[in-house]
Amino acid sequence: MNKLDSTTVVQIGIIVKDAEKTASHYAEVFGIPMPAVVPIADDSFANTNYRGQASTAKGKAAFFDLGPVQMELIEPVSAPSTWEEFLRTHGEGIHHIAFKTQDMDAARKFLASKGMETIQHGGWDGGQYAYIESTKQLGTILELLHSD
Amino acid sequence: MNKLDSTTVVQIGIIVKDAEKTASHYAEVFGIPMPAVVPIADDSFANTNYRGQASTAKGKAAFFDLGPVQMELIEPVSAPSTWEEFLRTHGEGIHHIAFKTQDMDAARKFLASKGMETIQHGGWDGGQYAYIESTKQLGTILELLHSD
Repeated sequence: MNKLDSTTVVQIGIIVKDAEKTASHYAEVFGIPMPAVVPIADDSFANTNYRGQASTAKGKAAFFDLGPVQMELIEPVSAPSTWEEFLRTHGEGIHHIAFKTQDMDAARKFLASKGMETIQHGGWDGGQYAYIESTKQLGTILELLHSD
Repeated sequence: MNKLDSTTVVQIGIIVKDAEKTASHYAEVFGIPMPAVVPIADDSFANTNYRGQASTAKGKAAFFDLGPVQMELIEPVSAPSTWEEFLRTHGEGIHHIAFKTQDMDAARKFLASKGMETIQHGGWDGGQYAYIESTKQLGTILELLHSD
């Protein structure tokens, strides 16, 4: 792989202190139904790895669509995670933009070869994700998403 | 207006120290043509207003599409502006997500009634923009865009 295999932004992820409260503001401002707030990284298949070490960090998230892009509001629940680190060092704000990949290993290796290392990875029931420390190069963290 | 008149994210704006350099990293990572870097807010029609005062602040920007979303890399050139303020207080990162509106005045008044005030507004040859201080409520600054 000598470039990412998708150029389509599929998700914008925002770190917030209170996912329920922020979701209610989105519902009000955009006139959309109140999004559900669900646990993330809380199951046996999560396999969360943060900076090379297994982590039991969890979060709460609200997912909803604004046009073609999925919004994810993430409330860090425990540490260590990139979510908790971002809130502690930046405050609330946009944490990542996400892209799908067909080949997670190749995409991670390609980005690492350009100095952009994986800072956290894990899975859910049906897929895998990896967060890439690309702020220095791209001005934001990238998330790679792969559906099994 | 009792909600915004669009729920479609049209742009993600990232504040960077060097738009040319960051644009070159996007070109490399996504395999897209190198975006042009152009001056913003540098013309007589810009009418930049920052926190209630006229401002001669300028910037440089690179625009390119990643799927359905336009990316805008903004390098602050002079102060005072929300761009310069963000870089100084947050460092490089995602500054705003943008939505179109048919009625800029009504959209700004609606958001102000919810505690989200305009922090900067201005225009370009063909339209107007307003940045809204909505970080506390929505986890990010909103930008409203109106084409004349």
